[in-house]
Amino acid sequence: MEHSLLESFSDTYKNLLENQLRENIDRMQAPEVIKEAMHYSLKAGGKRIRPLLLFATLDAFKERPEKGLLTACAIEMIHTYSLIHDDLPSMDNDDLRRGRPTNHKVFGEAFAILAGDALLTCSFQLIAETTEADVDANQKLELIRELAIAAGAEGMVGGQVADMEGEDKSLTLEELKYIHYHKTGKLLAYSAVAGAILAGASKETVEKFRAFAHHLGLAFQIRDDILDVEGSEEKIGKRVGSDAYNHKSTYPVLLSMDGAKKALEEEINQALSILKTMDLKTNLLEELTDLVATRDH
Amino acid sequence: MEHSLLESFSDTYKNLLENQLRENIDRMQAPEVIKEAMHYSLKAGGKRIRPLLLFATLDAFKERPEKGLLTACAIEMIHTYSLIHDDLPSMDNDDLRRGRPTNHKVFGEAFAILAGDALLTCSFQLIAETTEADVDANQKLELIRELAIAAGAEGMVGGQVADMEGEDKSLTLEELKYIHYHKTGKLLAYSAVAGAILAGASKETVEKFRAFAHHLGLAFQIRDDILDVEGSEEKIGKRVGSDAYNHKSTYPVLLSMDGAKKALEEEINQALSILKTMDLKTNLLEELTDLVATRDH
Repeated sequence: MEHSLLESFSDTYKNLLENQLRENIDRMQAPEVIKEAMHYSLKAGGKRIRPLLLFATLDAFKERPEKGLLTACAIEMIHTYSLIHDDLPSMDNDDLRRGRPTNHKVFGEAFAILAGDALLTCSFQLIAETTEADVDANQKLELIRELAIAAGAEGMVGGQVADMEGEDKSLTLEELKYIHYHKTGKLLAYSAVAGAILAGASKETVEKFRAFAHHLGLAFQIRDDILDVEGSEEKIGKRVGSDAYNHKSTYPVLLSMDGAKKALEEEINQALSILKTMDLKTNLLEELTDLVATRDH
Repeated sequence: MEHSLLESFSDTYKNLLENQLRENIDRMQAPEVIKEAMHYSLKAGGKRIRPLLLFATLDAFKERPEKGLLTACAIEMIHTYSLIHDDLPSMDNDDLRRGRPTNHKVFGEAFAILAGDALLTCSFQLIAETTEADVDANQKLELIRELAIAAGAEGMVGGQVADMEGEDKSLTLEELKYIHYHKTGKLLAYSAVAGAILAGASKETVEKFRAFAHHLGLAFQIRDDILDVEGSEEKIGKRVGSDAYNHKSTYPVLLSMDGAKKALEEEINQALSILKTMDLKTNLLEELTDLVATRDH
C-alpha cells in the first residue's frame, strides 16, 4: 500500500510514454529494419525511472506531467541508445539484457550501432518539436543543451570511457564515483533538471533538483551493486555475481557490504533532505526515492 | 585563377572552422583518450565542403559567414562521426581514410564508437549554444530540428542502412539515388538550408536552397563514382577501382561512363539554374558548384 500513489501515477504516465515512444518511431520514413531495431530495445522498457523522475518533478510544481512527454521520450531514447552501444562486443560484450537477447544479437552489430545513432539523433529532434504552448523556445534550447552535456563526452560517454579504462583495475572510491556519476548519474540528474526547467523554476531551484538527483543516482548505483551480490537472478534478469566474476570494483567490494548499505542510506537521506528545503508538493519524489533505496530489481 | 575568389574565401573560413573545432574539444572536461580520438578524425579534415556551402550561402545573403560558425562545426562533427562509424569493422571495415589509419585502427573499436557518439551529441549542443545576437531561439530550434532529420533514421543513418542492405546486390538507379540522397545528400542539403535559415530567408527561399543543394549533392556523388574509375590514387587518398572490386552499384556501372558524365552535367545545370532564380549574390555558390563538377579528389 505504501507505494500506491506512485504506482498509479506510474501506470498512467508509463502508458502514455510507451505509446508516444512507439508513435515516434512508427511515423518515421526510414528502412523497416532500423525502425524494428529501435522498437526492439525501446520496448524492452524496464522501470522507466528517468521519465518518472521527470514527470514527478513536474508534479511537484503542480504542472501537467504531459508537458514533459517528448523530453521524457528523448531521455528514454538516449538511455536506450547507451544500453545498445554498451552491450556491443567491443564494449561490454553482453548477449542478454533484461532477459532478452541484446540488440546486436538480433539485428547484427552494424544495425545495432546505427539504431543507437538514430535514437540519439531523434532525441534532440523531439525536444525541438515540443509543441506545448507553455514551453517557450529558450526553455527548449536549455533542455537540448543540458541533455547534450549530460549525454556527451562530459557526461555519459565520458563515464563509459572511464569505465572501460578502469576495467581489470582496482579503482579508488573517487574513481568509482566519477564513473557512476558520469555513466548513469548525469542523465538521471538531467531528468529532474529537465522537469524543473519545464516548470519554469529559478536557476537556484534547478540546481537543487540537480543535487537531489545526484544523490538519488548514487543511491541507485549502490543499490545496483548490492543487488548484484544479494539479489534474485529471476527478478533482476541477469546473472547474480557477474560483477565479482568480472572483477569489477563495486561499492560492496570497496566499502564492504555493511559500508555499502550505510552509504546507500546516506545518499537517500541527503536526497530527501534537499527535497525538504523546497516548498513544493514532493510526495511522489519522496516515494520514488524510497523505491530506489528498496527496489529488488 | 578561375577559382581564386572561392579559394581566398575558403582559406579564411576553413581556418576559422579548424580553430573553432579544436577549441570545442579542448575545452571539454572529459577523459583525454576520447578527446584525442575526436581530434584525430576532426583534423583529418578534407575539403570541408559542407561548412563552405553554409558560409557561401550566408555570403549570398550578404550576411557574415561567422554567424554560421558553430552550425558549421556541428555539421562537420556529424559528418566526421558518420565516417568513423561507417569505417568500423561491422560496417564498411575500412583501414584507411584520407590516407591515414581509420579511427578504430588507432583507438580501438570501443573508443571509435564512443568518439562518434560524442561528436554527434556535441553537434546539437553547439547549435543550442550559438550566442550570435542576430540568431534567435526559434532559428536555433529550426537548425536543430532540421539537422536531426538530415542526420537520423530519415536521413543519413537511413541511407547507411539502405547501403548495407544493398551490398552485393544490383541496384536500380532509383535505389542508388535513394542511398546517395539519404547517406550524403541530406546533410549536404542541410548545409545550404542552415545558411538560409540563419539569414532569415522565407520558407520558399529555404526550399530553393534545399533543391539547389540536392542537385549539388547528387553531382558530388556522381563525381565521386567517376573518380573511383578515372581518378588519381594519390589525389583521392584511397584505392582507385575499389567500387568495382567491391561489386558496388555506381553511376558509371548503371549509366555507362558517358551516361554518368551526362548525368553529372545535368545535375550541375539544375543546381545553377535554381541559383539564377534568386536575386542574391550567388557567385561563390556558383564557383563551389563548378568545383564539385570538376574536382579531382
